[in-house]
Amino acid sequence: MKAPFPFSAIVAQEEMKLAILIAAVDPSVGGVLVLGDRGTGKSTAVRALAALLPPMKVVAGCAYNCEPGRTAGLCEQCGNGGPQAKPKTQTVPVPVIDLPLGATEDRVVGALDLERALSQGSKSFEPGLLARANRGFLYIDEVNLLEDHLVDLLIDVAASGENLVEREGLSIRHPARFVLVGSGNPEEGELRPQLLDRFGLSVEVRTPSDLKLRVEVIKRRDAYERDSEGFAAQWKKEEDRVRRRITQARTRIEKVRIPDAVLEQAASLCMKLGTDGLRGELTLMRAARAVAALDGLEEVGMAQLRQVAAPALRHRLRRNPLDDAGSTTRVERACAELFAA
Amino acid sequence: MKAPFPFSAIVAQEEMKLAILIAAVDPSVGGVLVLGDRGTGKSTAVRALAALLPPMKVVAGCAYNCEPGRTAGLCEQCGNGGPQAKPKTQTVPVPVIDLPLGATEDRVVGALDLERALSQGSKSFEPGLLARANRGFLYIDEVNLLEDHLVDLLIDVAASGENLVEREGLSIRHPARFVLVGSGNPEEGELRPQLLDRFGLSVEVRTPSDLKLRVEVIKRRDAYERDSEGFAAQWKKEEDRVRRRITQARTRIEKVRIPDAVLEQAASLCMKLGTDGLRGELTLMRAARAVAALDGLEEVGMAQLRQVAAPALRHRLRRNPLDDAGSTTRVERACAELFAA
Amino acid sequence: MKAPFPFSAIVAQEEMKLAILIAAVDPSVGGVLVLGDRGTGKSTAVRALAALLPPMKVVAGCAYNCEPGRTAGLCEQCGNGGPQAKPKTQTVPVPVIDLPLGATEDRVVGALDLERALSQGSKSFEPGLLARANRGFLYIDEVNLLEDHLVDLLIDVAASGENLVEREGLSIRHPARFVLVGSGNPEEGELRPQLLDRFGLSVEVRTPSDLKLRVEVIKRRDAYERDSEGFAAQWKKEEDRVRRRITQARTRIEKVRIPDAVLEQAASLCMKLGTDGLRGELTLMRAARAVAALDGLEEVGMAQLRQVAAPALRHRLRRNPLDDAGSTTRVERACAELFAA
Amino acid sequence: MKAPFPFSAIVAQEEMKLAILIAAVDPSVGGVLVLGDRGTGKSTAVRALAALLPPMKVVAGCAYNCEPGRTAGLCEQCGNGGPQAKPKTQTVPVPVIDLPLGATEDRVVGALDLERALSQGSKSFEPGLLARANRGFLYIDEVNLLEDHLVDLLIDVAASGENLVEREGLSIRHPARFVLVGSGNPEEGELRPQLLDRFGLSVEVRTPSDLKLRVEVIKRRDAYERDSEGFAAQWKKEEDRVRRRITQARTRIEKVRIPDAVLEQAASLCMKLGTDGLRGELTLMRAARAVAALDGLEEVGMAQLRQVAAPALRHRLRRNPLDDAGSTTRVERACAELFAA
Amino acid sequence: MKAPFPFSAIVAQEEMKLAILIAAVDPSVGGVLVLGDRGTGKSTAVRALAALLPPMKVVAGCAYNCEPGRTAGLCEQCGNGGPQAKPKTQTVPVPVIDLPLGATEDRVVGALDLERALSQGSKSFEPGLLARANRGFLYIDEVNLLEDHLVDLLIDVAASGENLVEREGLSIRHPARFVLVGSGNPEEGELRPQLLDRFGLSVEVRTPSDLKLRVEVIKRRDAYERDSEGFAAQWKKEEDRVRRRITQARTRIEKVRIPDAVLEQAASLCMKLGTDGLRGELTLMRAARAVAALDGLEEVGMAQLRQVAAPALRHRLRRNPLDDAGSTTRVERACAELFAA
Amino acid sequence: MKAPFPFSAIVAQEEMKLAILIAAVDPSVGGVLVLGDRGTGKSTAVRALAALLPPMKVVAGCAYNCEPGRTAGLCEQCGNGGPQAKPKTQTVPVPVIDLPLGATEDRVVGALDLERALSQGSKSFEPGLLARANRGFLYIDEVNLLEDHLVDLLIDVAASGENLVEREGLSIRHPARFVLVGSGNPEEGELRPQLLDRFGLSVEVRTPSDLKLRVEVIKRRDAYERDSEGFAAQWKKEEDRVRRRITQARTRIEKVRIPDAVLEQAASLCMKLGTDGLRGELTLMRAARAVAALDGLEEVGMAQLRQVAAPALRHRLRRNPLDDAGSTTRVERACAELFAA
Repeated sequence: MKAPFPFSAIVAQEEMKLAILIAAVDPSVGGVLVLGDRGTGKSTAVRALAALLPPMKVVAGCAYNCEPGRTAGLCEQCGNGGPQAKPKTQTVPVPVIDLPLGATEDRVVGALDLERALSQGSKSFEPGLLARANRGFLYIDEVNLLEDHLVDLLIDVAASGENLVEREGLSIRHPARFVLVGSGNPEEGELRPQLLDRFGLSVEVRTPSDLKLRVEVIKRRDAYERDSEGFAAQWKKEEDRVRRRITQARTRIEKVRIPDAVLEQAASLCMKLGTDGLRGELTLMRAARAVAALDGLEEVGMAQLRQVAAPALRHRLRRNPLDDAGSTTRVERACAELFAA
Repeated sequence: MKAPFPFSAIVAQEEMKLAILIAAVDPSVGGVLVLGDRGTGKSTAVRALAALLPPMKVVAGCAYNCEPGRTAGLCEQCGNGGPQAKPKTQTVPVPVIDLPLGATEDRVVGALDLERALSQGSKSFEPGLLARANRGFLYIDEVNLLEDHLVDLLIDVAASGENLVEREGLSIRHPARFVLVGSGNPEEGELRPQLLDRFGLSVEVRTPSDLKLRVEVIKRRDAYERDSEGFAAQWKKEEDRVRRRITQARTRIEKVRIPDAVLEQAASLCMKLGTDGLRGELTLMRAARAVAALDGLEEVGMAQLRQVAAPALRHRLRRNPLDDAGSTTRVERACAELFAA
Repeated sequence: MKAPFPFSAIVAQEEMKLAILIAAVDPSVGGVLVLGDRGTGKSTAVRALAALLPPMKVVAGCAYNCEPGRTAGLCEQCGNGGPQAKPKTQTVPVPVIDLPLGATEDRVVGALDLERALSQGSKSFEPGLLARANRGFLYIDEVNLLEDHLVDLLIDVAASGENLVEREGLSIRHPARFVLVGSGNPEEGELRPQLLDRFGLSVEVRTPSDLKLRVEVIKRRDAYERDSEGFAAQWKKEEDRVRRRITQARTRIEKVRIPDAVLEQAASLCMKLGTDGLRGELTLMRAARAVAALDGLEEVGMAQLRQVAAPALRHRLRRNPLDDAGSTTRVERACAELFAA
Repeated sequence: MKAPFPFSAIVAQEEMKLAILIAAVDPSVGGVLVLGDRGTGKSTAVRALAALLPPMKVVAGCAYNCEPGRTAGLCEQCGNGGPQAKPKTQTVPVPVIDLPLGATEDRVVGALDLERALSQGSKSFEPGLLARANRGFLYIDEVNLLEDHLVDLLIDVAASGENLVEREGLSIRHPARFVLVGSGNPEEGELRPQLLDRFGLSVEVRTPSDLKLRVEVIKRRDAYERDSEGFAAQWKKEEDRVRRRITQARTRIEKVRIPDAVLEQAASLCMKLGTDGLRGELTLMRAARAVAALDGLEEVGMAQLRQVAAPALRHRLRRNPLDDAGSTTRVERACAELFAA
Repeated sequence: MKAPFPFSAIVAQEEMKLAILIAAVDPSVGGVLVLGDRGTGKSTAVRALAALLPPMKVVAGCAYNCEPGRTAGLCEQCGNGGPQAKPKTQTVPVPVIDLPLGATEDRVVGALDLERALSQGSKSFEPGLLARANRGFLYIDEVNLLEDHLVDLLIDVAASGENLVEREGLSIRHPARFVLVGSGNPEEGELRPQLLDRFGLSVEVRTPSDLKLRVEVIKRRDAYERDSEGFAAQWKKEEDRVRRRITQARTRIEKVRIPDAVLEQAASLCMKLGTDGLRGELTLMRAARAVAALDGLEEVGMAQLRQVAAPALRHRLRRNPLDDAGSTTRVERACAELFAA
Repeated sequence: MKAPFPFSAIVAQEEMKLAILIAAVDPSVGGVLVLGDRGTGKSTAVRALAALLPPMKVVAGCAYNCEPGRTAGLCEQCGNGGPQAKPKTQTVPVPVIDLPLGATEDRVVGALDLERALSQGSKSFEPGLLARANRGFLYIDEVNLLEDHLVDLLIDVAASGENLVEREGLSIRHPARFVLVGSGNPEEGELRPQLLDRFGLSVEVRTPSDLKLRVEVIKRRDAYERDSEGFAAQWKKEEDRVRRRITQARTRIEKVRIPDAVLEQAASLCMKLGTDGLRGELTLMRAARAVAALDGLEEVGMAQLRQVAAPALRHRLRRNPLDDAGSTTRVERACAELFAA
C-alpha cells in the first residue's frame, strides 16, 4: 500500500543490514534471526529490503514462481514440461511473504482445495504461503510466539528447499526455497536451542544509546510518516546503489574462491568454540563468500571470516557454566586468539 | 439505542479524557489503555466520545469505510478503481466497534462467507470487526480477560494499519486503521509487559476520594438514567464545544512544529527512564503535538511534553528492584529533574 | 407443570425475599446473588416469585418480548416500526428463564438458525435464552459451577441491557433487560471477587436452627407435595397481597425522592467500608428507593438505607487482613458508627 | 436376554435391599447410592428388582411413557390432549435403563434428530435415556467414574422430575421422573460431598466375612449360571411375595400418617448431627413413611425412623475433625442418645 | 497370512499356556492378563492358540457369530427368529480379534453406518470389533497403554457378555461373549488395581535365565522364520493332541463336580488373603473345574485348586505395607499354610 | 529432484553406514535408530542409500508394491489372485518414504477415500505412507519429536510386517514390511526405553573432532552443492561397488550358517548384560549373519558377533546405578571379558 521505508535510511543497525544482504545474495546461508528489543525497526528492515530486490522471471501462472529454463527444483507441472515446452514467462517482484500470527497450518503448507472439491468433486492442492514464498523471503514477526511445531516445519522446509505435504488424502511435493527471516524478542519467550541452531545467521539489535542517533531515528520516521513518497524520492539514489551491489554480488559469487587455509581457520574457530555439528563451518564459509562477493573480491580472506563470525556462530554455542561472558564476547575472544596466532 | 452519557458530563478523570481526545486527533498515537477499578466509568467515557466525533465520508457500500478521493490505504476494490472511477460517497458516524467477550476469532478478523460458499459455490471474504472499525475506534472492555493471541493479533493490526488474513483458503489484506481502546482492571489479570508497551498511551482511573465528587457522580448518573434525553439537552452546548476543539485540532496538527530542542528533551527523558526501543519517543512526540493542536498552538513546547509524559511512558518502564516507587512517580521525578535542569 | 410453591408460604428467609422483591420493583438494581447451604429453598423462592408477577404486554410474535408503544430499547424489527405502525399486542406472564447446567453458549446468546440456513439458504438469527429473558428473570442455579466466560457474558449483558452477538457470520444486537438471579453454595466453588461485585444485591440463606421452624418447613413442603393445588388455594389471599404491593411500588418509585443528606450518608458509608468504584453507592440508592416504594413512602430515609446496606455492600468489601469479622458484621458495624454519629 | 438373578435369592445385604424397596415404593425419596467393594452384587440387586416390578400403563407410542388419564407431568404432546382425547394405552414393564460408560451427553438428554433433519429438513427432538427412564429406574454403574458435569445433570433432572434441553437450536422440556440408582466403589474415585447430599439414600455393601455365607453366595451364583431358568423357577414364590408387598405399599402410603412428635424427632436428629439444609429431614420422613407402608402400618413410629436413619443421613454429615468415628457409627450413636432420652 | 508359530513349540512359560487353555475351555473364567518383559513371546502364544481352536458353527451372514439353535444370547435379528425359522449355518474359525493401538472407539463398539446413512438416508448400526469377537478371543497388546476409558468399556462388555451402545442416535444391544486377553509390560504403565481385579487370571512371564533354553528359543524362532510351513508340519502331531484335549474338556466340564469341602477351602483361602468381593472364589472355582476337565477328572480336588491359586488370586491382593513379599509368594505361603492344616 | 549425495562420499561415520547396510540386506533385523548431534549428516546417509538400492519388481498398479510370484505377504487383491492369474509386473526404485513432521495419522496408516466416498457413495481405502513404504524404507527425521502414539504405531507395524486399520468404518489389513530408520537428537527429547528396545540397531554419530576430516566434509558438501551431477559422476564407480556388495549379500545370506557355539556366545553376552527378553539375541544373530553375507563368508564367526554387539545391544541395557560407564563402554567391556575367556 504505502511505499516502504527505504533500506538505506535505516539508522545504524549495521550487523542486521549486513545479514539481510548476505541472505539476499546467497539464500543457502539458511535464514536470518533478528533478536532484540521491541521498537528497534526489525520488521522495517525486512520490509525495506523487499522493495530493493530486483524483480525475477517466473513461469506465467505457476503458483510456485518456477524459474523458466531450469530443469531441477521445479514444481510437478513445470517439471513435466507441462502443456507447452516453452512456457510463457512473467516478471514479478521478489515475494516477501508475511506469516501473520494466527495463520493456520493449512494456509502455511497448503491444503485440499475445498472449493474445487465441492464444486467439481475432485481433489486438488491449494498452495499455501510456502509456495508463494518460493524464491523469495518468508518473514515471521515474533517467531518465538509461534507454536513450536510450526517453527519446526518452517525450518525443515527452509532447509530442504521443498515442501512435502501429507494430509487430507493429498501427497504433494513442491519447491519452497526461501530465506526465512524471523524476528523476536527473547524476553517474550525463548527459542529452543535446536531451533536457534537451524537459523543460518543471528543478529542482535538494540535501542541506540546515543542521543543524536535517537533523535535522528525519530526525525526520519516522522518525515516518512508525514510524506512517504517525498521521503522515498530523497533516498532513491542510495537505494539504487544497494540494489546494484546485490545484483553484482549474485553473479560474482559463483567465482569467489575459498583458500584451504581459510577453510581450516573456519573449522578451527568452530572447534575452539565447541559448536555441535558442521553447520557452523558451512555457514561461516557461505557467509564469508557472500561478503567477499558484496565487496567485489575474488577470494575469501580472514577479514571476511572475522566479519561474519559473530552472526554465524553466536547462536550455536553451548552454555558454558564456567564462562558467563555473553556469546558475542566469546566468539570475538576466540577470533582474537585465533587470528592473532 | 438510548442516547449515550455526555462526554463533558463525566466528573473528574481528566487524564483519561485527555488521552481519548489525543487519540481522536491523531490515531497514529497508538491506542489507549485505561486501567482502574471497576465502576469508575471507563466504558462510559469511550461510548461518550463516540457520540461526539464528527461524522465521516466513506465510499458508499464499502465494507471497510474507505475514504473517497484517496489513493493509498484503500481496500482491494476501492484501490483498483472499482467499476466506476468516481464512487458514490456517504456520510456515516465514526464507527465505535465493541469487541464483546466471547467474540470468535473469525468474527474479529473476518472469514470465509459461508452463505455465499454454500449457495453460490464461490469463496468470498466476509469482513469482520476489524473491517468495521476502520477509520474509527475498537473498544475492548476487560482487555486483560481476552486471550493473549487475540490481543496480539489486535495490536498487530492496529500497529500496521492493515488486516492480513490467511485462513480457510483465503488470502486477504484490507485497511484497518483504528484507535484501539482497551479497558481493564489489573487486579483481574495482568497484561504481559510486551502488550503494555504496544499501547500508545495508558491512563489510570480511580474511585474519587472526595465526598462531594462522589455524590455529584451519583446524582448525574441518576439524572441521566431517569431521563437521558433531558440530560443530553442540558449538556449539548458543552458537547458542541468539545467537538469543535477536536475538529480544529485535526486540521491544525499538520502544521504544528516540533523544535529539535524538544525532540532532544523527549529522547533524554526516555533514556533517563530506560524505556526499551523508540516507541516512547515517538509516542511522546505525537501526543505532545496533538495536545498543542488541541490547545491551538503552532509549536510544541516543554509544557506539552510534560503533560503527556506520564500517559506516554509509565507503562514502558522496567521494574526497578532498587526503586519501589510507582511508575507514575518515577516518570514525574524524571521530568522534574530534567526540566528543572 | 405443577403449580409452584407460593412465595408467601416460604418460612423465614426474610432478607432473600426482600432482595427479590426489590429487583422485581427496580430491575436496574442489578441482579441478586443468593448464597447458602443446599436444601434451603433458594430455587423455590425464585420460582415462587415467577408466579406472583403481574403479566406484561408484548408485541405479538416478537421473540424479544418488546414492549408496545416504546421507542427505545426495542429489537431491530420493532424499532424500525416493522410492517405495521401499531403492532398487535399480547399479554404474557413475566418470563422466568432457567439456564440449565450444560446449556451451550449458542443457546444462551442465540446463534445462526441452522434450519433456515439449510432449507432456505439464508442466514438468520435464532434468538437464545437471553432473548427470552428480556423484561423478565434469568435464573441460574449453581452460578458458581458455570464456566467463568459464560458468567462474564451474562453479567455483561445484564449490565448493558443488550445482547451483542458476533459469531458465525452474524452481527446482532437486541434488548436483553432482565434480573439475573444466581444461586450458589460458596463451599462448592468460589465466585471471583470481580463477579461478586457485578451483582447488585447478595443475600445469605441458612438452614433454620429453630426446631419449630424446621418442622414447619417440612410440614408445608409435605402438604404442598401431596396436594399442590389445595395448598395454593390456601395461600392465594396472601399472594394477591404481595402482587399488589409490587405493582403499586413500581408506579410509586418514579416519584420517590432521595434527599442529598441521604446520598451523602450512602457515599460516606461506602468510603468508610472502602468499596471500589461507585457501584456500591448506586446500588444503595436504588435499593433504598425500591424499599421506600414498597413501603409506600415518598422519600428515602436513613431507615431504608440501613435496611439494604448489608445486601448491597457485603459482597464488595476487600478482605481486610487485620479484621477477621465477617463482611455482614463489618457492614453492620459501619452503619452503627455512622448512623449513631 | 438371560433371566435375571432373583431379588430374593440375594444373600444378606439387607440394608441395600431395603433401600431399593423404599425407592420402588416412593420414588420422591430421591435415588439410592450403593457404595462398596467390587464383586458384592451391587448391579445384580438392581437388575433383580427390575424383574420384580409390576408392569405399568403408558400412552401407546409415547416416547416418555406418559401415564394415561393424568393431567400434569405429561410430555408436550400428551399434555396438549394430542390428536385424540382418549389415547390408546399399552402395558409395558417398568423401564430400568442402564447408562453405559461412554454414553455421550446427546444420548443421555436427547438431541436433534439428525435423520429427520437430513431427510425432511425439519428440526425435531430425539429423546434420550432420560426420556426412556421416565417412571422407571436409571442405573449408573460406577457413578464415581462418570464425568462430574453428567452426574450434576442427572441429579438435577432426577430432583426436578423434568428434563430441560437447550441445545442445537432445540428448547424442550419433558417429564423425567425416575429413581436414580448409582453404584460405586469409593476407592476408585470420591464423589464430591455436594453430589453425595443429593442422593436420597446411601447404603454400604461389603464382602461377607462369614465362611458359610460366602460359600452360599458362590453356590447360588454357580447354580444360576449353570441353569438360570431352573433357578428362577425355584425362587418364583418368594419373588411373588415381594412384588405384592411393593404393590400394596404403593397404595397404602397415601394414607400413612406422620405424627408431629415423629417429625420433631426427625428434625432433632438432623440438628444433632448438624446436616446442612433440610434434605435430611425430608428424606427421613419419606423413607420412614415408605417403610411403614411396606410393613402394613397406618402411622410412622420411632422404629421406622430409626431403621432409615443411617441410609438417609450418613452421607450428609460433615467431616468432624474431633470425631474420627465413621458416619454410620455417628448416626447410630445420635439415634441411641435421642431415642433413649 | 503366514502360518502362526505352533502353540506346542513355545519353550517353557507353562503358567501362561495353562491360563490360556483354561480360558479356552471355560470363557466365563473372565479373561487372561499376561504381564512381563517385552520379547518373551506373549503375543505369540495367543496367536498360536488361535490356530489350534476347533472351528465353530454360526448363523450364516450374522455379524455377531450367533450360534444356531440357541434361544438366548442372540443378536436382535437372530433372537426374533428372523425371516426364516431355521437359519443357514456356516462353519468358521474361532475369531481372534486384534485390537490395534490407535483403534477408535467407534470401531471398537460399533457405530452409525455412515455409508448407508448417506446413500439410503437411514440409520443403521455398523458392528465393531466387539461384535466380531463374539464367541472368540479379543487380544489387546499392551493393554496398559490403552486409554483407561476404553479398557473400562472392554472389561464391562467382557463381564456382561453384551455390548450396549448409546451413541449417535443409536440404541443397540448385542451379544459379545469373548475371552479378553491382555498383554502388557508393567514397567511401561501400571494398570489400575480395579482393572486388575476384573481380569479372571493373571500370569507372569520372564526371559528364561537358562542358557540352553535361550538358545533353544532362538533356534526355533529362526527355524520358523526361515520356513514357517516346514516348521508347522514338524509340530502338527503335538498340536492335534492339544486340540483334542481342549475339545474333550469342553464337553466334560459340564459334569465336573465341586465338593463343598473344596468350595470351603477356596473361600478360606480368599479370606486368608483378604481379597475384596467374591470374584476370587468364583474364579478359583471355575479355573479349578477347567483344569480338572483338561486333566480328565470327574471332580475338582485340592490339587487343582492349588494349581490355579496363583493365577486366580495374585492380582487381587491389597498391598500389605507390613509384608513386602511379592504377591505370588503371598499366595503360595497361604496355600501352604491352609492345605498343610 | 536434485541427485542425492553419494553414499560412499560420506566421510567417516562407519558404524552408521554399516548399520544401514545390514538393514538393507536383512530388513528383519528391525530398524535403525541414528542418534547424534544435529548437522552430522544423519538424513544424508539414508537418502544416499536410497539411490544405491537396486530397483525391485512389483505387481503393476498395486498400491502396496506387492512382489509378483509370491503367495504370502500380499495385499488382499494380489492375494486373491485378482482378475488375472499372472499380473503384469513393473520395475520401480526401492521406495524411501519420508514421514514429514506434521503428517496426520490418517496419511500414515491410510484412511477412508473421501473422494470416492463423496463422488461414488462407496467406502474404499486410501493407502497411506505405510503402504507406500512396503518393501522399502520409512525414514523419520527427529523421531523423538513425533507423538508417542504414532511412534508406537509405526514400530508395531514394522514389527508385524502388516498394517491393520480399524477406523471410519474400515477394517483393512495390508503388508507393510519396511526398514524403519529413525534419526534423532537425544538432547531434544528422550525416547522411552520401551521404544528404544524395539529398534533393531542403534548407532551414534558425532561431529568429527579431527580438523582434516572437518575440512574434508565441508569441501565435499560444497562441491556437491555447487555441481551435484559432476560430483555424482565422480563417485559413480564407488557407488556401483557398494550396490553389488548389497545385491550379493542378499542372495548369499540364505545360506550363511550360524554354529551353535556362536549362538551360545550371543546368549551369554545378553545374559551378562542383563538385556530383557530375547530381542537382543535375535538381533545379534541376524545382524552378524548379514555382516558375514556382506563380507562374503559362509559362516558367522565371533568377529561378526563382536562387530555388531554395540549397535545391537547398547540401547537395551538397563541403567545401572552402580556403573556410570556409557552403554557403549559396557557392551565393549562385556565383549572383551567374554571373548577373551
